[in-house]
Amino acid sequence: MPRFTELVAGLPATVPFVGPEAQERTRGKSFKARIGANENVFGPSPRAVEAMAREAAETWQYGDPENHELKIALALLHGIAVENVVVGEGIDGLLGYLVRMLIEPGDKVVTSLGAYPTFNFHVAGFGGDLETVPYMDDHEDVFALIAKAAEVRAKIVYLANPDNPMGTIHPPSTIGRAIDTVPGNCLLVLDEAYLDCAPAGSEYPLDPDDKRIVRMRTFSKVYGMAGARVGYAIGHQELIRSFDKIRNHFGMSRISQAGALAALEDRQHLANTVARIENARRRIGEIAASNGLPVVPSAANFVAVDCGRDGEYARRVLEGLIKRDIFVRMPLVPPQDRCIRVSAGTESDLRLFEQALPAALREA
Amino acid sequence: MPRFTELVAGLPATVPFVGPEAQERTRGKSFKARIGANENVFGPSPRAVEAMAREAAETWQYGDPENHELKIALALLHGIAVENVVVGEGIDGLLGYLVRMLIEPGDKVVTSLGAYPTFNFHVAGFGGDLETVPYMDDHEDVFALIAKAAEVRAKIVYLANPDNPMGTIHPPSTIGRAIDTVPGNCLLVLDEAYLDCAPAGSEYPLDPDDKRIVRMRTFSKVYGMAGARVGYAIGHQELIRSFDKIRNHFGMSRISQAGALAALEDRQHLANTVARIENARRRIGEIAASNGLPVVPSAANFVAVDCGRDGEYARRVLEGLIKRDIFVRMPLVPPQDRCIRVSAGTESDLRLFEQALPAALREA
Repeated sequence: MPRFTELVAGLPATVPFVGPEAQERTRGKSFKARIGANENVFGPSPRAVEAMAREAAETWQYGDPENHELKIALALLHGIAVENVVVGEGIDGLLGYLVRMLIEPGDKVVTSLGAYPTFNFHVAGFGGDLETVPYMDDHEDVFALIAKAAEVRAKIVYLANPDNPMGTIHPPSTIGRAIDTVPGNCLLVLDEAYLDCAPAGSEYPLDPDDKRIVRMRTFSKVYGMAGARVGYAIGHQELIRSFDKIRNHFGMSRISQAGALAALEDRQHLANTVARIENARRRIGEIAASNGLPVVPSAANFVAVDCGRDGEYARRVLEGLIKRDIFVRMPLVPPQDRCIRVSAGTESDLRLFEQALPAALREA
Repeated sequence: MPRFTELVAGLPATVPFVGPEAQERTRGKSFKARIGANENVFGPSPRAVEAMAREAAETWQYGDPENHELKIALALLHGIAVENVVVGEGIDGLLGYLVRMLIEPGDKVVTSLGAYPTFNFHVAGFGGDLETVPYMDDHEDVFALIAKAAEVRAKIVYLANPDNPMGTIHPPSTIGRAIDTVPGNCLLVLDEAYLDCAPAGSEYPLDPDDKRIVRMRTFSKVYGMAGARVGYAIGHQELIRSFDKIRNHFGMSRISQAGALAALEDRQHLANTVARIENARRRIGEIAASNGLPVVPSAANFVAVDCGRDGEYARRVLEGLIKRDIFVRMPLVPPQDRCIRVSAGTESDLRLFEQALPAALREA
């Protein structure tokens, strides 16, 4: 066989997530409600759909490797310079590049126990040592993360705000204090995939001259374009420029570039989507309540429904839902695994969830 | 600043290619003929365009991270098992993963001097030591590559067949002998991006049980879907499975998956495209001949036009064409840099080339 690097030879052949399609193949039937992957069922802006459909015939051309137009539009939107933005193949792709730039075998990285598995996948993939900090009251424990980063001299500390899988959020003041206390030479990766779902005023002001932090954003959530694979990072221009040293320059789909550009222009669709997500969150809360279950207050496009017992019990509830063709997921680590995670669905999705939940609870 | 790895800190901030869009921005005007990036101007199958346009509204969903349907279709097409195929974000993306799996700082990699820059970019990006072998008679020098691989105990030897940027091809018998002589523990990466453009009978039979070789294929060339970023690798299942350890599992565009699947079904469009490429190659040869220039016989979707003097002269010809709004590229290393590389264009593209070439030659 080819001589794999020692690092790769030692990696497990695990995947960060099993997709719903793979589950459907195993089950031999389709899901009726796809509310497990925090996708945005309300879909992209019609303008984005139109732009993508129009660009289909142009896909014989490579996309612009510099993502120039999209970066200009993003810079305008955020009031920053184009040198402070890099576009990549989703936050997943950008996290992979970022970890590659900073982490070599033995380097320390800090994250919350039970936070985003794909980030952990990348850290393991470059040989980093992951140090984890438990959640506190279903929130990522910001200052414990920072303290751990100082203790182990971490190169990266990862924080999702709003958090996934719990949906909880820290206010801008907390983020500001986190930035001010993050150890020198440790980069705070603030994953803000779900920030657009959060209440107004949730954004910590962007300061792209700040070398201590990089912000991750995406078109996969409120923009409703998960399948298009468009994410971006905002940071200091030296950090942003370094992505060019290693990224797959021609890695972006041309159709996705066109779609993202059009999606950015449709602020009304975005506002409507946020309202629909809010509404769906409320509905999930009502459904949970009518089954005697509380929910974790969420600032994201999903809600963690507290099944009230342990992880084994919640897993049985989850399996009962899956059996009834409702695709949902759940946190993996106690005590958060007492919950199941339900993405904001259409009214029809949530009615199916509403119908399936009582029986799933009974069986569990 | 964040603490970059030593490797990344030492990488140059170069890019493998400047895209035509960046050139257009610098020039302040558009190209009239885009025949420089070996894109396929004849475009994707109408069925693929339709499938992509249809999928645009579904792009709120992540694509299947296992690329299951596409891999099944590819396995059927090639008469191999699904375990022998991995789909990725273009050959560029797959080459990056492959290099990452095998190469760590100081490991040796062999390629031809002047061959595909993006492969070299990945090798440098993982700290590999690139050893190069000159072309021989405008062909990649297969057995010199193999000998060099043995000499330096390379982990990877890269061969494009048909070659890029010259378009020359080695017959299956030569590929067979290359495989039989490649040193144990050295992987032969056979980049067959352009193979579908080559005459019938050019394919060395696939043997996915052979651990010495991995074959790279793409939808970017004859399928006319460069902007969709869909490539695949065929190899031994142990190698193929290893991609799962590190690849960006949710990296594929859902629209691209749908497009590739539909494109595969339209064999007639593929045959028509190959005929149009053949025709365009002949036209480029005629245009060159009528300016007193020979061409390098090509099995790809482009033709290296021999400007007959040195690289400096050819570069002036190239600049004359670019000035006249014809986007072309050229080889970067002597003596191949005596040529300019012209992609198969539409009749309209090639007429523009025909009109611009005499003046470009005069000025040069």
